[in-house]
Amino acid sequence: MNQIKVFSPATVSNVACGFDILGFPIDSIGDEMIVRKTKKKSLVISNVTGYSVPLDIDKNVSTIAVKKMIEQLKPDCGFDFNIKKNIIPGSGIGSSGSSASASVYAINKLLGSPLSEIEMVTYAMKGEVASSITEHADNVAPALMGGLVMVKSISPLEILKLPTPKDLYCFVINPKIEVKTSYSREILPKEVKLKSATKQVSTFGSFVHSLHTEDYELLGRSLNDYLIEKHRKKLIPLFDQIKGIALNNGALGCSISGSGPSVFALTKGIEKANEINLLVSDLYKTSGYDFSTYVSKISENGVRTLSI
Amino acid sequence: MNQIKVFSPATVSNVACGFDILGFPIDSIGDEMIVRKTKKKSLVISNVTGYSVPLDIDKNVSTIAVKKMIEQLKPDCGFDFNIKKNIIPGSGIGSSGSSASASVYAINKLLGSPLSEIEMVTYAMKGEVASSITEHADNVAPALMGGLVMVKSISPLEILKLPTPKDLYCFVINPKIEVKTSYSREILPKEVKLKSATKQVSTFGSFVHSLHTEDYELLGRSLNDYLIEKHRKKLIPLFDQIKGIALNNGALGCSISGSGPSVFALTKGIEKANEINLLVSDLYKTSGYDFSTYVSKISENGVRTLSI
Repeated sequence: MNQIKVFSPATVSNVACGFDILGFPIDSIGDEMIVRKTKKKSLVISNVTGYSVPLDIDKNVSTIAVKKMIEQLKPDCGFDFNIKKNIIPGSGIGSSGSSASASVYAINKLLGSPLSEIEMVTYAMKGEVASSITEHADNVAPALMGGLVMVKSISPLEILKLPTPKDLYCFVINPKIEVKTSYSREILPKEVKLKSATKQVSTFGSFVHSLHTEDYELLGRSLNDYLIEKHRKKLIPLFDQIKGIALNNGALGCSISGSGPSVFALTKGIEKANEINLLVSDLYKTSGYDFSTYVSKISENGVRTLSI
Repeated sequence: MNQIKVFSPATVSNVACGFDILGFPIDSIGDEMIVRKTKKKSLVISNVTGYSVPLDIDKNVSTIAVKKMIEQLKPDCGFDFNIKKNIIPGSGIGSSGSSASASVYAINKLLGSPLSEIEMVTYAMKGEVASSITEHADNVAPALMGGLVMVKSISPLEILKLPTPKDLYCFVINPKIEVKTSYSREILPKEVKLKSATKQVSTFGSFVHSLHTEDYELLGRSLNDYLIEKHRKKLIPLFDQIKGIALNNGALGCSISGSGPSVFALTKGIEKANEINLLVSDLYKTSGYDFSTYVSKISENGVRTLSI
């Protein structure tokens, strides 16, 4: 195999109740990448289409992610990257995580799959760290593994695949304004009330319980964030209105996707997600901002091969 | 039915990873209570044996707990309480929770069981609040319901019964020094690091996941507390040594029971719990403090009728 074309999904992370530790892929939007073996042992980004990202291999997360991997696997070739960047950077739906996961997955495949899933996550995180101040896995792990994924710990890295209820769908709106992950992390307080922390602990616990018992009502009562949303929502035009519409129209929960500005809602069944899509799109047209929306099943699929 | 004799178990709350929200009963120690209907519509504590608790019905948690209940159920009789107080107050193993649960359960039975489990928990909490600054349900809920129980929220009260892995045992040591719940709450910080809160959220999430998947190793890696233990452990003689012995001898985890001074360890199988019991007892004899130890299955049984 000398060439591979892969699709790597966007991801919703945090998911209201699991700041920095929970995420899932959005199956209907993702980056595409063609990676080709080259004789010369180097990394080259020969082409980028879609949204603009650096061609410099020391600045592009796709190549940053695979540098350490290549150092350790020592392949007898180089790699050329042709990137179709479909996810706008700074969108809060795992743009850099998607690119980092795509390149790690592609090169692993081209080299005969020497790496385990957890090793791939480790390398992809190296790319992520370039676009964020802290190392986190809640975008790359769901992008690589699919389904609802929680990061138990970063050091040592431990990832748990949670059960994904089969009727779970998401609606996502991505306002086309950039919120830098680093900035939206800076505005968070270093300390939180013990009482709020305790509430968040129980809320995440009941979320995990609801997945195992496939209890959608409990799931809905568990999609709450007491630590982060109040600080970040001011960066997002019409956030409260979007959330109001979602919750008044049957969403199980609604909050900020990643560090924003994207906002997601989860629903039982696709109909409610489609309905919320229509209503929120109507609202957002009045905001003056450009935007995209997505409706997707919470898919068990992560990154995948499109062709070889 | 004019009289009932009940047993109400001691409980381990917090359980390392679930401060204020998680608990389970210790089947081998609990308060006993004989409650008798009386013609005169009043509450009387006619006898207390074992550890000393107030005879005054406005100061004893057993009677405080049932006052509101009686106001609302309006029974055509009064009640006489004969309390065998086996759990030392201020021990950290739910002494007041046991008494409060016993009286609520007993009177509910004597009146033909008009209350649901969650209603019983609500009333029993009224007794608990008398011995603590904040209202909490992580002792009375497991005492009344049995098994591993989590408190999703206090207001509105929502309790979840978690699956209890069948080979789970606990060892508990109760040093005979009193630590007032109110004091051990005062020494806690009002705020905690966001990073520690996030760690606790993921740790509790993985704990719940481990119960559903019956993964004892993950359960062990989830019995950690990043918020509370470091502040309270200084109130407990030889805490670090007890924990060292437990973890070096196969315990899945070890931490403070409730607000201390009791310390618990969880094990897979009874043998390890017995072994830890011997070793910790040997250590504690050197401390100069009197103490008791208990080994118990994490039982699905909570409070129960001994005779009628």
